[in-house]
Amino acid sequence: MQNAALLVIDVQKAFDDPAWGQRNNPGFETNIANLLEFWRAKKRTVIHVHHSANVTTSRFHTDKVGHEATKEGQPLPGEPVFKKLVNSAFIGTELEQYLRTNKIEKLVVVGLTTDHCISTSVRMAANLGFEVTLVSDATATFERELDGIHYTAEQIHAVHLASLNDEFCQLASCSAILRVGDAMQMVGDLI
Amino acid sequence: MQNAALLVIDVQKAFDDPAWGQRNNPGFETNIANLLEFWRAKKRTVIHVHHSANVTTSRFHTDKVGHEATKEGQPLPGEPVFKKLVNSAFIGTELEQYLRTNKIEKLVVVGLTTDHCISTSVRMAANLGFEVTLVSDATATFERELDGIHYTAEQIHAVHLASLNDEFCQLASCSAILRVGDAMQMVGDLI
Repeated sequence: MQNAALLVIDVQKAFDDPAWGQRNNPGFETNIANLLEFWRAKKRTVIHVHHSANVTTSRFHTDKVGHEATKEGQPLPGEPVFKKLVNSAFIGTELEQYLRTNKIEKLVVVGLTTDHCISTSVRMAANLGFEVTLVSDATATFERELDGIHYTAEQIHAVHLASLNDEFCQLASCSAILRVGDAMQMVGDLI
Repeated sequence: MQNAALLVIDVQKAFDDPAWGQRNNPGFETNIANLLEFWRAKKRTVIHVHHSANVTTSRFHTDKVGHEATKEGQPLPGEPVFKKLVNSAFIGTELEQYLRTNKIEKLVVVGLTTDHCISTSVRMAANLGFEVTLVSDATATFERELDGIHYTAEQIHAVHLASLNDEFCQLASCSAILRVGDAMQMVGDLI
């Protein structure tokens, strides 16, 4: 249980752009900050994944402010940062190799967005054999529409959690993790 | 546009078990049968992926009737069948290598279930660089529950299509594909 890493995905300024529409989970930023503080205080592994883009029109292009981590998601010196070009944190990155080399088998996943990069990365982590806990209130998404039907961010978020739960990961709230003295023990109990 | 393959995922008898709960899309079986007939008539590539399991308690264990393809999903001799042990059709299989070797860049995806193996495989296919069309009414899923909230199969199906659309794939209905004289052309237009 000692080796669960906090995997922080796409906590970047690009998602502050109002063009994404309405986001759910206003507590997201606070929960990210609290989990990072907790993990660092325990001197356990924190890993960041940042979305990058080669096309200059993307909000995630490395030259743009959107590529920067948010205030709450700032990596500290020494914490690994993997850059990805697609949704999955495992495609086109050295993340899997890093985890294997460091014998990290358990991941506690947080970040954006629930139904795009988080869902994709959680699925692939699980299918690669990692044990995944997704912090249900340290992720969030945006409203979407299809065929004239509007879905709120909260609807999308909730349905995706229901689909991921048990099949790919266990869910835990931020407060459940912070409540216990040792987050790793809690995560161990959950998974 | 000549090389779009029909990728048929987990169209197996295990999903007939009523223990899964209520499924959406009663037209699923007919649509699968019609798409397979269409692809075969055009002499284009059909690829099957079947879920397998090493644990004997699984409905998908290779010794069980649940592992067999359904009547509509039966592979013909000569059609490749890849066996997978996880949700993604690309993890632990030779599927990607087969597609690269045969220079197949476009996939038309059908099968079960929308939010588990279909979503996972579509996401990974897209992130690996394949162009994916998901046939929106040739996939289906089951009702689920989380934290005492019940989600109908149709709710889950619809939200997952909204999340996949444009980010990982283009959506097309079975009838839209069958309506045109050349499905590949239609798929080409769509993607």
